[in-house]
Amino acid sequence: MSEQHIASAFDRDLEAVQAHIMKMGGLVEVAISNAARSLETRDEELAQQVRQGDKEIDALEDMINEETARVIALRAPTAGDLRLVLSVLKVSGNLERIGDYAKNIAKRTTTLVEAPHIGSSAATLRRMARDVETMLRDALDAYIQRDAELAQDVIRRDEDVDLMYNGLFRELLTFMAEDPRNITACMHLHFIAKNTERMGDHVTSIAEQVIYLVTGERPTESRPKADTTSQTV
Amino acid sequence: MSEQHIASAFDRDLEAVQAHIMKMGGLVEVAISNAARSLETRDEELAQQVRQGDKEIDALEDMINEETARVIALRAPTAGDLRLVLSVLKVSGNLERIGDYAKNIAKRTTTLVEAPHIGSSAATLRRMARDVETMLRDALDAYIQRDAELAQDVIRRDEDVDLMYNGLFRELLTFMAEDPRNITACMHLHFIAKNTERMGDHVTSIAEQVIYLVTGERPTESRPKADTTSQTV
Repeated sequence: MSEQHIASAFDRDLEAVQAHIMKMGGLVEVAISNAARSLETRDEELAQQVRQGDKEIDALEDMINEETARVIALRAPTAGDLRLVLSVLKVSGNLERIGDYAKNIAKRTTTLVEAPHIGSSAATLRRMARDVETMLRDALDAYIQRDAELAQDVIRRDEDVDLMYNGLFRELLTFMAEDPRNITACMHLHFIAKNTERMGDHVTSIAEQVIYLVTGERPTESRPKADTTSQTV
Repeated sequence: MSEQHIASAFDRDLEAVQAHIMKMGGLVEVAISNAARSLETRDEELAQQVRQGDKEIDALEDMINEETARVIALRAPTAGDLRLVLSVLKVSGNLERIGDYAKNIAKRTTTLVEAPHIGSSAATLRRMARDVETMLRDALDAYIQRDAELAQDVIRRDEDVDLMYNGLFRELLTFMAEDPRNITACMHLHFIAKNTERMGDHVTSIAEQVIYLVTGERPTESRPKADTTSQTV
């Protein structure tokens, strides 16, 4: 078996695993979008669909992790190739967490179905979710194409999501203070907003992974962190 | 080089990596404990220490991940040995996340330093944190000793943490409704409680990893999930 032959067998294996990552990413994108839409339109059935769909995402993660282990055992990759294969585990882990957050949003949507709309929160949450979804698509494209520039752009855009989250955090506090009957609904919306903001962080992790793969260096500490709500007094 | 020699070199490498996991676990335990104590005693300096300490935890994770990649590249482990090495990445990932949650609690503690105590929330949070800390110690012991029974016990105990979280969630809602001036402080306490509950989930993930390593099977779906707050109306 020539060196060339081994190399291309590895490439084929890696491509197969990455195809599953893309499939998983597609499912997660749909979950984000449907979770936000079901909240905005109070669509309980769609929320239920998101909750059910998370099982498929989890199953894909398990499969990807097993495939990855098989590729390592079979091809014994080293250096850059090994780094590439191990990155699959990180990315699938991030995708699984994002799927979990979408599921949690859908759960709370089911709880909120009878609650009145609180200001424009659902629309803001929809906008945040749409941004995160687009960022995720670009992060995965950057991953497949090893495009550090696109990955850097994704990291920058996470700041907008954080800023929207800050605004919503303050708005929801106001609605709570104005009418105690809003408190429980607002609490759920707070957690939904936080979940969406956390999704953005996981997308950022994927983008950072791309930069590490391409440049061999971890992005510097200066990752923009515009979520300042933990300092709100 | 004999087969035996290779095997024991692998074991030595693995032990070295696991020693770093234990060190990382120790730092995370301290972070959990100090985050909760700084909140209860309004100790801003201790909170600052937790925030600073997270850098060391993150650096350890990076080091462990690099060591793991080196062991794989050097020893080309397969089957059970490979599963063992890959589990290190999962466990270090979980520890890093728990450390992050402790850091976030410490951030919010800094914000809450001037706020009045809300009911017995700080004491409840302290109790939750203590439970999570003990669970973490046991989960890591179970990991090193491949003790599936102890791991199963850890998973069971996470239910108590979830139950405490449920109670606190409702209590905080009441305090918010009683006096709107409590709202912002209660919001931070809500997130602190949720962070602690999530820490318990990550400890549970470590325990599940142990069961997978020992039995070769993923724990069944029936993991107790007593956090029902997303259904609170």
